[in-house]
Amino acid sequence: MDAIHVLDCTIRDGGLMNRWKFDDEFVRALVNASRAAGSAYVEIGYKGSTAFFDPQEYGKWRFCPEHVLRAFWDDRDGAVLTVMLDIGRFNPRDMVPARDSMVGAVRVACYVDQIEEGVAATRILDRLGYETFLNIMAVSEAKPQALDAALRLSGQSPIRAISVVDSYGNLNPGQTQALVTRYHEATGGKAVGFHGHNNLQLALANSLAAVEAGARFVDASLAGMGRGAGNTPLELLLPQLGTPLKRLGALFSLIEESIPALQRQLRWGYQVPYIVSGLANQHPREAMDLMDRGLGAVESGYLGRMADLASVR
Amino acid sequence: MDAIHVLDCTIRDGGLMNRWKFDDEFVRALVNASRAAGSAYVEIGYKGSTAFFDPQEYGKWRFCPEHVLRAFWDDRDGAVLTVMLDIGRFNPRDMVPARDSMVGAVRVACYVDQIEEGVAATRILDRLGYETFLNIMAVSEAKPQALDAALRLSGQSPIRAISVVDSYGNLNPGQTQALVTRYHEATGGKAVGFHGHNNLQLALANSLAAVEAGARFVDASLAGMGRGAGNTPLELLLPQLGTPLKRLGALFSLIEESIPALQRQLRWGYQVPYIVSGLANQHPREAMDLMDRGLGAVESGYLGRMADLASVR
Repeated sequence: MDAIHVLDCTIRDGGLMNRWKFDDEFVRALVNASRAAGSAYVEIGYKGSTAFFDPQEYGKWRFCPEHVLRAFWDDRDGAVLTVMLDIGRFNPRDMVPARDSMVGAVRVACYVDQIEEGVAATRILDRLGYETFLNIMAVSEAKPQALDAALRLSGQSPIRAISVVDSYGNLNPGQTQALVTRYHEATGGKAVGFHGHNNLQLALANSLAAVEAGARFVDASLAGMGRGAGNTPLELLLPQLGTPLKRLGALFSLIEESIPALQRQLRWGYQVPYIVSGLANQHPREAMDLMDRGLGAVESGYLGRMADLASVR
Repeated sequence: MDAIHVLDCTIRDGGLMNRWKFDDEFVRALVNASRAAGSAYVEIGYKGSTAFFDPQEYGKWRFCPEHVLRAFWDDRDGAVLTVMLDIGRFNPRDMVPARDSMVGAVRVACYVDQIEEGVAATRILDRLGYETFLNIMAVSEAKPQALDAALRLSGQSPIRAISVVDSYGNLNPGQTQALVTRYHEATGGKAVGFHGHNNLQLALANSLAAVEAGARFVDASLAGMGRGAGNTPLELLLPQLGTPLKRLGALFSLIEESIPALQRQLRWGYQVPYIVSGLANQHPREAMDLMDRGLGAVESGYLGRMADLASVR
């Protein structure tokens, strides 16, 4: 079996819950623990333009300027420093050539209807010398024909892999496997990755199912920190892929020291609004809003509306 | 496909974390919500002898006397009221005949080396008119020959089903499926159940894998409440088996109202000591002790010892 590459998206996806305002000390500890545990890629944030995001309101990992990366990443050995770029939020031409950057890989995120811009971005980044990846978001609500067309176009791009992204945390292991196979075939044989969300506590099982179906890149985050219900927990994924317990000490230590306080503040994870949004296959934004306002999914009427929606389909 | 029967073990397994001292109001709400959501069995506690357990120290659900059951269970329609009986802790001959009891089903729990007493107990209970089940505990550390002999003997008992019990929360979906098949074959065709623990966040995925392999009885508990890392969450299992969202309102409501306080008090669930015990395939008692004493798995040296243990095997 080919190697499985684990991508740590803790800061990038977790930052969706706190506008990327992490203590420097936590980010440094995470980078070190994740590399020691064997993450192949560490995705530390987004490339974002200050034309779209006010630096007074967003932390540095929403922008990832080169001088910041230099202060947090001390060599190019081991894991690959990775950033994500949202189509429409950052111009890929504004990146410096890879030889002048600490960044080794760029993941381009787009929706199905932005696929042409997404593929164009991977070509620009490839010419700049970066390893590139493509994440098509919210596929569980994409129309089958539009998704297939987007996958065929992705097959023409220079990407290392394309990820199945379960943005709404709605997939089960069988559906995940079918999507991995479909992505591989429709792109004409591109390597496939998987990005899970844990609304239904299936993110890890879906990741393992994706690997069984041939996926070679899997995303995970410390204690599952990420938007809404969060992602596949890194500390659970690595041992399932064969990492021995003794390599996980720094990760577990960081969880015990830092996660309880972050959890109280960011409140990702196992919460009824996120279970309901996952079951109803909906974007978590409304569930996140309930969490922010301290409202229950039942008393607020959210469950009732989602149940009506689910029974119509 | 035959019907899948969900058994709610919230009070029975959750009671392992608080000596079965639940508020009456919570137990009543749970029973009603669980039945409304479609649980086929509600396991409300243990039959235990006061010769082994001091009623001053343990709540009523450790004993389940008939007059208590009568006060909490208002009819015999719908779900089956179920109790568990540990071999060596209660004499099955002390149960009244089923026609005089609110209890419809008794699950007998034993270790591999107690299987003869376990099977004898199911025969006594069967003659008393109860539906019976057998749970062989801690199978992940049983010797294969001893387990097979125990399964063959179980095949001679009058049980409705025998459960694969992942006491240490160590199994993955593939291993679970192999065990379900083995239990079915070695017992000469008995129906099989599955009782998961969630140390590695695979309890739900293992339950679904068990069902795919032919299991027809699956245990779950509200918000996964149970010993250590807890069990398969009932509110996630039911919708995966086809229960529509609109039937889950009372369960979600109870979670939002009651679980945060219970969670702070009982502290089952996603905790590093339980992840480590699950990965090392160990009984959770030492991890539970760390949790009680407020010690981390890394700083206490527990992770180090477990890593050594895991690397020797």
